Amino acid sequence: MDIKAVVFDAYGTLYDIQSVASVTEEAFPGHGNAITQIWRMKQLEYTWLRSLMERYEDFSVVTHESLIYALNVLGLTYDTDVLARIMDKYAHLDLYNDARDALLALKGRKLAILSNGSRAMLDALVRNSGLDRILDATISVDAVKIFKPSPRTYALVETTIGVKPNEVMFVSSNPFDVCGARAFGFNVAWIERVTPDAVALEFANRDLVSPLSMFKAVRTQMDELGLQPTCRIRTLAELPAAVAQIDRR
Amino acid sequence: MDIKAVVFDAYGTLYDIQSVASVTEEAFPGHGNAITQIWRMKQLEYTWLRSLMERYEDFSVVTHESLIYALNVLGLTYDTDVLARIMDKYAHLDLYNDARDALLALKGRKLAILSNGSRAMLDALVRNSGLDRILDATISVDAVKIFKPSPRTYALVETTIGVKPNEVMFVSSNPFDVCGARAFGFNVAWIERVTPDAVALEFANRDLVSPLSMFKAVRTQMDELGLQPTCRIRTLAELPAAVAQIDRR
Repeated sequence: MDIKAVVFDAYGTLYDIQSVASVTEEAFPGHGNAITQIWRMKQLEYTWLRSLMERYEDFSVVTHESLIYALNVLGLTYDTDVLARIMDKYAHLDLYNDARDALLALKGRKLAILSNGSRAMLDALVRNSGLDRILDATISVDAVKIFKPSPRTYALVETTIGVKPNEVMFVSSNPFDVCGARAFGFNVAWIERVTPDAVALEFANRDLVSPLSMFKAVRTQMDELGLQPTCRIRTLAELPAAVAQIDRR
Repeated sequence: MDIKAVVFDAYGTLYDIQSVASVTEEAFPGHGNAITQIWRMKQLEYTWLRSLMERYEDFSVVTHESLIYALNVLGLTYDTDVLARIMDKYAHLDLYNDARDALLALKGRKLAILSNGSRAMLDALVRNSGLDRILDATISVDAVKIFKPSPRTYALVETTIGVKPNEVMFVSSNPFDVCGARAFGFNVAWIERVTPDAVALEFANRDLVSPLSMFKAVRTQMDELGLQPTCRIRTLAELPAAVAQIDRR
């Protein structure tokens, strides 16, 4: 079976969402780590809850509302300028240092992003990082007004770039996204950016942990949803070989 | 508008889910708190993810799989006996000490539970706590094969006990459940079992927090989903007066 398209999740897979921590720490010294972790947890939750409640709003709204939640629960005060400065970082997230080379090595196949991000957020992010010159398509779930892992989001790949699910290699670091994509019928490479061993070590015999440890504990390990990735990689540099292996099957 | 039925969420509202911590601590000394918090976070996530993925399995499956996740990510080893002993606690959760009197004070209206729990889990829990002699109905989302906050779950109240949404007072401590019930059209009393001030205090100028603090940080405050509860209470003893106030409107 030939892989005709390689489709990437954006946030946490190509782009380092933890890189917002520098901006949150600058705005709220001593609280950057807690804000960043609570913000991301609520951001994901709100995508799931709004989808289930049938009250979709786009990812910029969800991202803004989850930031408000994080600041309020920590008892921090803020003005619209601070919010705008933090939100702006979402258009300038750091590209993981293994991302560009992996994309270039896969040229010849169709290359795309499929992301929860709104059209405007993704366009800015892709342009600012220079990936607009490499990708064939940047697909936003906004077209179907529901978030991952709804099967309607993954169906956008075929309707947008015309490649059937079993000819797609989907790449994500987010376990829930891996499960959703597998349930839909994609081949899926799970990039493990943190190992479970590292989490166990951080919790070993400790009553107190950092907010980041708690975040890792609920986001790092493959979810127990009865689904497994097609393959596991530790860096995007391993991706071309993983794709070639499926070609040969 | 007369309130004809008062409908309660079960886990975290009438029954103290944190009471599993005694069993997890006994089974895994030094890890009870971390297991309990990670377990509950993943249990909720799995209800949302399975619903969105259109891969529903009942709450006993989700509860079992999320427990496995929590033990694995902490690097703990276990056998089926330990799992069974911990899971059994879910049929014997402690009733909050304000629950029984509040229910008795509301007799004369229809009283029901609407819960994510499976039929078997809820029947055992309600019988073991003696609430079967007080409640008119125990409604499981299993009838519609999707979890809260899908509007299809809240619609079960009218189809089961014949009371229209605007004549229902729904009671929950879980912010996502409050938002889902409000979006559906119920009157909703939010019982705040932990105050946001307490969370801010636990995080103030601290790099390290307990897993319970992190759990509270993402579960305590009303969610930013554009919806507000009809009223807020601090104990179920305040509920009869809150219901009477809506009658008088």
